Amino acid sequence: MQFSGYGSGKKRHEHDLLGDRELPDEVYYGVQTLRALENFNITGVTLRDFPIFIKGLAQVKKAAALANCEIGILDKEICEHIVMACDEIIAGHWHDQFLVDMIQGGAGTSTNMNANEVIANRALELWGKEKGQYNFIHPNNHVNLGQSTNDAYPTAIRLAALQSVPGIVEALEELCATLSEKGKEFSDVIKMGRTQLQDAVPMTLGQEFEAFSVMLSEDIERLREGSKLFLELSIGGTAIGTGINSHPKYAATAIKKIKEITGLNVVAAPNLIEATPDTGAFVMFSGILKRLAVKLSKTCNDLRLLSSGPRCGFGDINLPPMQPGSSIMPGKVNPVIPEVVNQVAFQVIGNDLTVTMGSEGGQLQLNAFEPVMVFNIFQSVNMLSRAMRTLTRLCVKGITANREACRRAVEHSIGLVTALNPLIGYENSTMIAKEALESGESVFNLVLKHKLLTKEQLEEALKPENMLSAR
Amino acid sequence: MQFSGYGSGKKRHEHDLLGDRELPDEVYYGVQTLRALENFNITGVTLRDFPIFIKGLAQVKKAAALANCEIGILDKEICEHIVMACDEIIAGHWHDQFLVDMIQGGAGTSTNMNANEVIANRALELWGKEKGQYNFIHPNNHVNLGQSTNDAYPTAIRLAALQSVPGIVEALEELCATLSEKGKEFSDVIKMGRTQLQDAVPMTLGQEFEAFSVMLSEDIERLREGSKLFLELSIGGTAIGTGINSHPKYAATAIKKIKEITGLNVVAAPNLIEATPDTGAFVMFSGILKRLAVKLSKTCNDLRLLSSGPRCGFGDINLPPMQPGSSIMPGKVNPVIPEVVNQVAFQVIGNDLTVTMGSEGGQLQLNAFEPVMVFNIFQSVNMLSRAMRTLTRLCVKGITANREACRRAVEHSIGLVTALNPLIGYENSTMIAKEALESGESVFNLVLKHKLLTKEQLEEALKPENMLSAR
Amino acid sequence: MQFSGYGSGKKRHEHDLLGDRELPDEVYYGVQTLRALENFNITGVTLRDFPIFIKGLAQVKKAAALANCEIGILDKEICEHIVMACDEIIAGHWHDQFLVDMIQGGAGTSTNMNANEVIANRALELWGKEKGQYNFIHPNNHVNLGQSTNDAYPTAIRLAALQSVPGIVEALEELCATLSEKGKEFSDVIKMGRTQLQDAVPMTLGQEFEAFSVMLSEDIERLREGSKLFLELSIGGTAIGTGINSHPKYAATAIKKIKEITGLNVVAAPNLIEATPDTGAFVMFSGILKRLAVKLSKTCNDLRLLSSGPRCGFGDINLPPMQPGSSIMPGKVNPVIPEVVNQVAFQVIGNDLTVTMGSEGGQLQLNAFEPVMVFNIFQSVNMLSRAMRTLTRLCVKGITANREACRRAVEHSIGLVTALNPLIGYENSTMIAKEALESGESVFNLVLKHKLLTKEQLEEALKPENMLSAR
Amino acid sequence: MQFSGYGSGKKRHEHDLLGDRELPDEVYYGVQTLRALENFNITGVTLRDFPIFIKGLAQVKKAAALANCEIGILDKEICEHIVMACDEIIAGHWHDQFLVDMIQGGAGTSTNMNANEVIANRALELWGKEKGQYNFIHPNNHVNLGQSTNDAYPTAIRLAALQSVPGIVEALEELCATLSEKGKEFSDVIKMGRTQLQDAVPMTLGQEFEAFSVMLSEDIERLREGSKLFLELSIGGTAIGTGINSHPKYAATAIKKIKEITGLNVVAAPNLIEATPDTGAFVMFSGILKRLAVKLSKTCNDLRLLSSGPRCGFGDINLPPMQPGSSIMPGKVNPVIPEVVNQVAFQVIGNDLTVTMGSEGGQLQLNAFEPVMVFNIFQSVNMLSRAMRTLTRLCVKGITANREACRRAVEHSIGLVTALNPLIGYENSTMIAKEALESGESVFNLVLKHKLLTKEQLEEALKPENMLSAR
Repeated sequence: MQFSGYGSGKKRHEHDLLGDRELPDEVYYGVQTLRALENFNITGVTLRDFPIFIKGLAQVKKAAALANCEIGILDKEICEHIVMACDEIIAGHWHDQFLVDMIQGGAGTSTNMNANEVIANRALELWGKEKGQYNFIHPNNHVNLGQSTNDAYPTAIRLAALQSVPGIVEALEELCATLSEKGKEFSDVIKMGRTQLQDAVPMTLGQEFEAFSVMLSEDIERLREGSKLFLELSIGGTAIGTGINSHPKYAATAIKKIKEITGLNVVAAPNLIEATPDTGAFVMFSGILKRLAVKLSKTCNDLRLLSSGPRCGFGDINLPPMQPGSSIMPGKVNPVIPEVVNQVAFQVIGNDLTVTMGSEGGQLQLNAFEPVMVFNIFQSVNMLSRAMRTLTRLCVKGITANREACRRAVEHSIGLVTALNPLIGYENSTMIAKEALESGESVFNLVLKHKLLTKEQLEEALKPENMLSAR
Repeated sequence: MQFSGYGSGKKRHEHDLLGDRELPDEVYYGVQTLRALENFNITGVTLRDFPIFIKGLAQVKKAAALANCEIGILDKEICEHIVMACDEIIAGHWHDQFLVDMIQGGAGTSTNMNANEVIANRALELWGKEKGQYNFIHPNNHVNLGQSTNDAYPTAIRLAALQSVPGIVEALEELCATLSEKGKEFSDVIKMGRTQLQDAVPMTLGQEFEAFSVMLSEDIERLREGSKLFLELSIGGTAIGTGINSHPKYAATAIKKIKEITGLNVVAAPNLIEATPDTGAFVMFSGILKRLAVKLSKTCNDLRLLSSGPRCGFGDINLPPMQPGSSIMPGKVNPVIPEVVNQVAFQVIGNDLTVTMGSEGGQLQLNAFEPVMVFNIFQSVNMLSRAMRTLTRLCVKGITANREACRRAVEHSIGLVTALNPLIGYENSTMIAKEALESGESVFNLVLKHKLLTKEQLEEALKPENMLSAR
Repeated sequence: MQFSGYGSGKKRHEHDLLGDRELPDEVYYGVQTLRALENFNITGVTLRDFPIFIKGLAQVKKAAALANCEIGILDKEICEHIVMACDEIIAGHWHDQFLVDMIQGGAGTSTNMNANEVIANRALELWGKEKGQYNFIHPNNHVNLGQSTNDAYPTAIRLAALQSVPGIVEALEELCATLSEKGKEFSDVIKMGRTQLQDAVPMTLGQEFEAFSVMLSEDIERLREGSKLFLELSIGGTAIGTGINSHPKYAATAIKKIKEITGLNVVAAPNLIEATPDTGAFVMFSGILKRLAVKLSKTCNDLRLLSSGPRCGFGDINLPPMQPGSSIMPGKVNPVIPEVVNQVAFQVIGNDLTVTMGSEGGQLQLNAFEPVMVFNIFQSVNMLSRAMRTLTRLCVKGITANREACRRAVEHSIGLVTALNPLIGYENSTMIAKEALESGESVFNLVLKHKLLTKEQLEEALKPENMLSAR
Repeated sequence: MQFSGYGSGKKRHEHDLLGDRELPDEVYYGVQTLRALENFNITGVTLRDFPIFIKGLAQVKKAAALANCEIGILDKEICEHIVMACDEIIAGHWHDQFLVDMIQGGAGTSTNMNANEVIANRALELWGKEKGQYNFIHPNNHVNLGQSTNDAYPTAIRLAALQSVPGIVEALEELCATLSEKGKEFSDVIKMGRTQLQDAVPMTLGQEFEAFSVMLSEDIERLREGSKLFLELSIGGTAIGTGINSHPKYAATAIKKIKEITGLNVVAAPNLIEATPDTGAFVMFSGILKRLAVKLSKTCNDLRLLSSGPRCGFGDINLPPMQPGSSIMPGKVNPVIPEVVNQVAFQVIGNDLTVTMGSEGGQLQLNAFEPVMVFNIFQSVNMLSRAMRTLTRLCVKGITANREACRRAVEHSIGLVTALNPLIGYENSTMIAKEALESGESVFNLVLKHKLLTKEQLEEALKPENMLSAR
């Protein structure tokens, strides 16, 4: 580690199991964070890139301090300063001190110690002490009191996950609402429905957009349902769920404090030995993110198909131009926003696999691969949220319909013949369809030509309201 | 297609859009099934390998006939014979006539027509007519009346999925109950817990098995929850969800009939245009199967670790020997049952990816890739059910504990020192741990040697009940 | 196990580590296969569904017998009868005796023993002995002599994989050749190229089909290259690669015999301890199958797009109708063959994940998950081969071009303006493009209207040969 | 976009198809980059996080300028300044101006334009002009001359990929060499080999480490082989591979210049229409990265198993302690470095799926999803390189053997009996194995007790050199 960026030059020394190390005095983290920075230089993505996770860590530490104080095993003055430091972090301060790589060995120990050290040193400072004076407030003995990484870290993850749900749900709701508005706007645009990319039967463009909205909106409930699994916390289980070294009242008290701090309706996991290594909630939630990604990708595939053209494609709709499409083809405008959403979907699907493998790899009383799971889940949540907002605001809102072209397509379609089945029979319909395809003539004219129906009968049969409503 | 296996030599002719074809008169399927057999020769796995799916198809056809009859658009006598044929199929007959490959193009049309044709011909036969006399009962005009593949096929899938849940849940419950029994049996076996494969702190083997049980049992609720998404049916939507060509009362009546036939609490999907192409329920259910697979794999990884040895491994437990382990190493017994379950888990995880890709590939008003999704989901359900039953009966039931070895391991472990933290402090504990590791001596003796505690104090501190309970 | 199908009622007894068992005397397999049938009832897919794998097993056993005989540790008469039995199996006989589930625990031991037992009993029979008279020819002591499952099983897999390559390569070559023929047939069909689904610049349909052919043909070399990794055999390594219990000359002699039997240019792996558990060749080959699947899926996606319509889609080409597309929409013809190929691709991609997980799960001196890898690789090979043949014969061969529509699309396209860039500048081109889009007029007319070029200049600039050739 | 960080306050205006925009004059990028920054706010990871990719872009632009100048269609003075700007970027300057998100819509257009704009403005500055004076040097007309994003962008990717191979290969070679050194160091440490986690037969720890080295070293060749596919460039194909708007000599000249600039043996793709949308090389290379990840994961799984303990595990080796393992368990040291490598492997496997999906999604004449593929491949390369260096330096180098424990384990193992097979027969061996297992006695003593061999015979049979060598 180089600390060349630090000006004052003042140093302090810290000690751990492996020996002594020097740190620049400006930093709030300590020797164990330093070792993690040296050990894990993998992704360039660090804790501070996920503020909601840092918040979750500080909430756990605050709850632990308050619980230990209430139980009577942590001095009140120490507790108060730990809480003050935690509150600052919850409010968004000192995040630049959370520097450990998101992908790390040690089952989250480095993340937990990064939090313990920063909180201890900031609490010391608030108390008028110097950083590193751990005899007053110690990262392990006080900030981590009654905890193990093995219960504190997953608890922080769960709090962060729960608190990230409203953001993604909001982005999804905004997208659904906008698609639904478009559904209303396009409710009178008659167009050909397509199955297996072949012309099928008529529908409205409004129905198509409303269907996007309905399909996606189902995942609002799924996200909420899935996130409920995070409400079960293993805090108090310490090393392997047996609660060794924690006070008998600690678990219940800590849960109570977390409830007060976060407003979340958390509960103690019924079996802490099971809860400690179990990452099923991660797999479930990631699976729901994947499902949402699949639906977004399907929606964007459709938007790109429907706007294909302008002259040699489907051409039902126009996406708003967001940037010049080509340096070589003048006037070309590309579906860049759906394209970026598709790619986000592919990334989320890949991330889900990483989560799956991490979960499968857990062994015995702990899953050492939680860091990579957390990284992928939080990254997926962030990417999906941003992608949905981008899609809503920079694409869906500005979509326009090619009303005339849509109408003409229906009138000239062969699929119209389906609506005549009950009147002229499947055999006659098939004959008309074949002749239309070969001759290029319209179904309307061919039915008249073959005198299968009168003009009035035909017009009645092909009235939109007779073809469009799903009763 | 060769029909060399058929003896009578009698033939009949059938006709479709593409022309005339000859069929051996023994077969109950017709020309469209024949084309599917010629077009799709891919996996060797056919509809008849999934009886529960064939049952679902027959239930849909029966419900449709009854609904159309009640509405008054299907002749009562025709209806009765269709229902008789369907009931035979539901009871397990004629499955050998469902021969289309599970992976097929056409979005399930071939499967739907296979059902329509077999039912029509069997109904004709029951009526005293000859096979192929479609003027009496027609596969399309009567059996498929008011339906499209696009609503009939997914409805059958959903019924089949719903009816497959009890079987997998039962297998899972049996496994959980057996693990829990083992938990009780081993409740007094003290052993070392391990985190990150390193000796941690003591626990009981009973706690370990109970944790397996609890972890897996959570997925009973997940399976039930996830399968509820299948209760929403798109029947009545016909081609694209607009219900074109179906009677206004058809959808509601068909749902009512399905309820009566299956006893399932099905409902009409609120938006049929959305419901027609949506495969979100498949993704969700497959994701839950994947989660269960991950947990089973984790469990089997642990069983293999815990039974590693007999002398150079963890050796906490013994799996029952199921077969000679090696043709070259006498007396070797391998963990063959957990190994097969691991592999089933890998297959299910791969299948989930296939389902994901199938869902993502759906376009516009239909998803043409439902066949591959259905194949993978049903295969995963079957494989998981069988794997869990195998694991329960051929492995878990027969597991025995190495009580003595487990106890000795705890007594000689360094992890014991954790329990002394509150008494002798973290610094002293670390010192003892280091010396124990280097010298090979026991923590017990070293604490006495350094006179940190009296023998009485030590014995009290290391009492199991002080280390094992997760309060 | 029920043997109800067997008529004679004659029984024989066999013995193994776990005790005595009775078998119907008709069966050629023995007690260890029987145990495997009882232990592994998972997929319904058995060894006999993969004849090329059974052949590989018999080739290994034949080579081993010949090698041991040449070395002088196997009696010549025993050897001769083992070889006779193996030759029968290689020729396709007795495959119905290979009944073990493809997904099995025990790292392939059951498969190896199934082969050992069938070969021993058939050899006994050929020698005039009775089945089960293992004192004359013993499954372990003679058929398995000098081998362990851990070297014999992977060797058989590799031989099978190598011998399956010509089949898949042939199917791929036929597809490429057919696409290339279509490329020639369509070499004068001018059409619009499309990027990001938007009209781009002109090309020929021939170029498009030739590009499919070239893209796919690259994987012929990849398949050959990837399969070369299978040429390194671990035979002779026995249990863990140290060669314990095999004769010093055995490894080299066995390799020589395999060469003679198969004509394959196999070699001994340079490090048998590494080669024994290594499944890198499986991952590599499966990855190549996945790449081929991705390309086939892309090709079929394109064929479905290009044939979309007939009136409201791209409509550049027509796929041959293979079956009625819809029971409700008369005259509808769907792209059923590309659709089935897409689904095969999704399955192969899922299978590749299963292979990946199986490989990752290998531990220490052996990978116990080879059975699931083998199952998935062979299934992928078979499915891809059949899918490509289906695509070639039932789809690509019959594709026709909509020449007129393609030509008109180019003439009316806005993309034409790109070719005028060098003559009228990017600014003017953009202006023309915009006006064309808004007014619906042709680029040709607008350029004339704005007097940017003379008619002669325009016609010269828009000559196909000036736009189409990739120099 | 907020530019609050910029001090001077000077602004300039730029114009594109969508209208006018203001930019702070300090920035070197222009209006199209600005639009991309507004459109794509997804990952927080930008071009500048991948310097090797920016280098590739500048190399392409330099080659294009030189080629156009040599052909005579680019003014020499303009060319010189473009080249100067490119050389600065190649040398590592101005990377902070490459700010577009790695996941972007538009098939790379924004990345290409980011490069065009930065190069144009820096070239203008070097020429003594002002930024934005595009009449002198224009991002499109001069820097992008003869190119389309559709050929320039993939060419840059390929150059970057090729230039990233030496780094990852070097990291892999260092790891293999270190493992091999350990193999030599441990060549006399006799230990039990384990198959299926069960004690098997003896080997040396040196053989085990040498096997790791051999297994991994095979991927050096795979990486090199796979990267060769990147040598085929599509430069000169422009929009769709037909080369529209590029000079007839451009393609060949540009290839020649790229060769000179990079020293890479690049060639023109034989079919540019095929090469333009084809992403098969990405899938192949990513598949090889996945294979390497699988092998690294297997290696780290083994290292964690072998170092499990210290007293209740396998305990063959010790990993160097890198950080305190637990805040609650004194003296616990965890395998944190293998754990982080496992997680990197899971990420790379997930990334490979994302690449697969991106490739499958490509349509017709272009693949719009190259950005997400590139992002994942470069991220995987970087992560694997760092993970391997970390593993080598912070773990493998410091591994020590528990010689005594390993030796004792062999002496007390039951697996020894395998070596006696040829002397006392499989039946006797099995009997001894069973008795040893039940009684806890050593094989050595039991063989003597049953008088199956003399002490001399036994000692001869169990000599290491008779058990360990793979001949």
